[in-house]
Amino acid sequence: MDKISALTEQFTKFPGVGPRQARRIVYHLLRSRKDALLALANDIASLKDSVSQCTGCFRHFTRSPGAQSEECSICQSTSRTHTLMIVEKDVDLENIERSGTYTGQYFVLGGLYAPLAKEPLAYVRLGELLSRVAALRSAHDLTEIVIALAINPDGDETARMLEGKLATLNESTDEAVPPPFSITHLGRGLSTGSELEYADPETIKHALRSRF
Amino acid sequence: MDKISALTEQFTKFPGVGPRQARRIVYHLLRSRKDALLALANDIASLKDSVSQCTGCFRHFTRSPGAQSEECSICQSTSRTHTLMIVEKDVDLENIERSGTYTGQYFVLGGLYAPLAKEPLAYVRLGELLSRVAALRSAHDLTEIVIALAINPDGDETARMLEGKLATLNESTDEAVPPPFSITHLGRGLSTGSELEYADPETIKHALRSRF
Amino acid sequence: MDKISALTEQFTKFPGVGPRQARRIVYHLLRSRKDALLALANDIASLKDSVSQCTGCFRHFTRSPGAQSEECSICQSTSRTHTLMIVEKDVDLENIERSGTYTGQYFVLGGLYAPLAKEPLAYVRLGELLSRVAALRSAHDLTEIVIALAINPDGDETARMLEGKLATLNESTDEAVPPPFSITHLGRGLSTGSELEYADPETIKHALRSRF
Amino acid sequence: MDKISALTEQFTKFPGVGPRQARRIVYHLLRSRKDALLALANDIASLKDSVSQCTGCFRHFTRSPGAQSEECSICQSTSRTHTLMIVEKDVDLENIERSGTYTGQYFVLGGLYAPLAKEPLAYVRLGELLSRVAALRSAHDLTEIVIALAINPDGDETARMLEGKLATLNESTDEAVPPPFSITHLGRGLSTGSELEYADPETIKHALRSRF
Repeated sequence: MDKISALTEQFTKFPGVGPRQARRIVYHLLRSRKDALLALANDIASLKDSVSQCTGCFRHFTRSPGAQSEECSICQSTSRTHTLMIVEKDVDLENIERSGTYTGQYFVLGGLYAPLAKEPLAYVRLGELLSRVAALRSAHDLTEIVIALAINPDGDETARMLEGKLATLNESTDEAVPPPFSITHLGRGLSTGSELEYADPETIKHALRSRF
Repeated sequence: MDKISALTEQFTKFPGVGPRQARRIVYHLLRSRKDALLALANDIASLKDSVSQCTGCFRHFTRSPGAQSEECSICQSTSRTHTLMIVEKDVDLENIERSGTYTGQYFVLGGLYAPLAKEPLAYVRLGELLSRVAALRSAHDLTEIVIALAINPDGDETARMLEGKLATLNESTDEAVPPPFSITHLGRGLSTGSELEYADPETIKHALRSRF
Repeated sequence: MDKISALTEQFTKFPGVGPRQARRIVYHLLRSRKDALLALANDIASLKDSVSQCTGCFRHFTRSPGAQSEECSICQSTSRTHTLMIVEKDVDLENIERSGTYTGQYFVLGGLYAPLAKEPLAYVRLGELLSRVAALRSAHDLTEIVIALAINPDGDETARMLEGKLATLNESTDEAVPPPFSITHLGRGLSTGSELEYADPETIKHALRSRF
Repeated sequence: MDKISALTEQFTKFPGVGPRQARRIVYHLLRSRKDALLALANDIASLKDSVSQCTGCFRHFTRSPGAQSEECSICQSTSRTHTLMIVEKDVDLENIERSGTYTGQYFVLGGLYAPLAKEPLAYVRLGELLSRVAALRSAHDLTEIVIALAINPDGDETARMLEGKLATLNESTDEAVPPPFSITHLGRGLSTGSELEYADPETIKHALRSRF
């Protein structure tokens, strides 16, 4: 296969890029200057060198030069509250940070329970989550876990599964064990832009329950 | 203007019908049988004869033959709770009824505050609402008003305005006056199908506040 | 069923109108004045009284008051050329007339060959077309037939079928018979807005053949 | 700026890629294996090394290893006809080749006349085109030029401009000069999928003229 087709095929693996767009991207690169191509290639090749996956929350973050830490700035911060929010993806975490309304900690789950896949939990960091929760608990750094997954069947199924697993960590009659944490879910209701005419029954039910 | 164009023009006044579709509708009617056209014409001509606007909630309802009541079945019901939900349109009311999760009463406002219109309150039944609320109060039939308008700037503006007007009805030091009603809003948060990656800051804020 | 639902159901039979839009139309009518409803009902009821289907081309047209003719103005015109264009629908004819580039006569076929339907030719006025062509021929009023159907499989299939049927009308060795007419198709090629990147092979083939 | 944001920004320069998608692509790469990233980076860095721009038609093509030629396989072929098709972009040329209906040569113009740009002809290889045409003429290798640009205002304007410039090359009374070439345009008409109801007047006009 020629180089143009080979690179086109590589770009079709990018999320949301189809074959025609992939080809347009290749021609775009062919019109670019050689040094711009080298810079792009270098950034891609070195991406993983400067980006680490946080050992606390599993998000990706750019390491400061010379920094030894394997934890991201949020996990290292001492001013975050004792709440842990479980999100699916890095971009979910970023969007919530951008909203400026949450001051607790995070855990990036990596994926949702996928009932039809060969390994339904292949992308779910379940063991890592339980370890993290156990560690926070021992340090008396956990009072609440907020499950913040997509509001769809896979998200709901994953939330139910997590709730079950996490609940068992609370079961202990040992006095030395830290007090139990609560498990909550992000509130459901009308989103910005919602019209009552088109709201689904589940959303109406939640909106009625959580009226304020 | 010929009859085909004249009727086409009438159909373009229907909500959501453009000129091409209007014309297609006319040709659809031309292919219909004469008796089907007469039946449709009769239903349109007599629509208002059998449909009344409820004097309680202002929704439209089909009167039972021989019935004298000017109130709809919901307003006549004695099993509805002492909550009054303010919605904008008949279809909003219908959608909430369909959800089967609300058991109180309704008031159809008719429209939203339209800041750019010549008469911003032209379609808002404000006087009728205040009378209705006063009547329910005197009858000790009101403990809560739920404002259930669209989650957009016009809906929010209308909600603020209503809240101000309704609050004054609660101000009374007269002991004979019934206890004040509360004013609430439908809960905001993640709707069915929401993904955290795309949620707007306002929705995230509400979802965090109303976590459950 | 109540009147609102009954009329909603009638409107869902209109082309391109779904159940929600149908309901919005009913509420739109409920907000209209009684005399507007009566005018609309009257236009619908009397639509067929003032509109005839032309006995020549089968298009619908509004009869002038007092007019006896059963032919539309195009079919009655003596300045139209001896070309007959076969279109599927009234709106196709209207669109071509609006373009101002065709000066011949028309025949509205009524529908396309529908291979999967119980009666594939149920909506195709084949007998009427052949009679019309024979009549024009006898009057020496026909030199060309332009087939102007949709460029899709059903349109192509119908065109092929018509071509076969029409060709037999040309077969005659009788000297008294008028000279044969030609059968043509509307030119294919790049339409306004076409981009070469997205053109399909068939369109490219035609565009190459008919380059000018 | 951190590496994730830096690479995100680079991807937003790709045609058709917005900021959110760019970020998703970066996270996609972060989940990929190191060797896959290196392969992609290498392909991008070396893209221009193995891809040349043809000195004949200016399309991009992958050079065969060891090949010296600066012309693509189409320009080198001796079996192509003496027709030259002018297209805007590489992808246009590829799409026409894929259709298998054109056997002549090509010239990739590079862009359209852009009336609102500071330099309206910045991306148009006008000088290169005139040289190429002159060379083909001297070699008696040119009988027709087919202008095959987009059917929109900019494409039409560019076509008119090219026609003027190319026509002057034909003006010569010198007997030694090769016979003039013709200048044609791709045929216009109904494209695959066109419906008569929605065809614009220009398309109808062309479809009538080029009926077949």
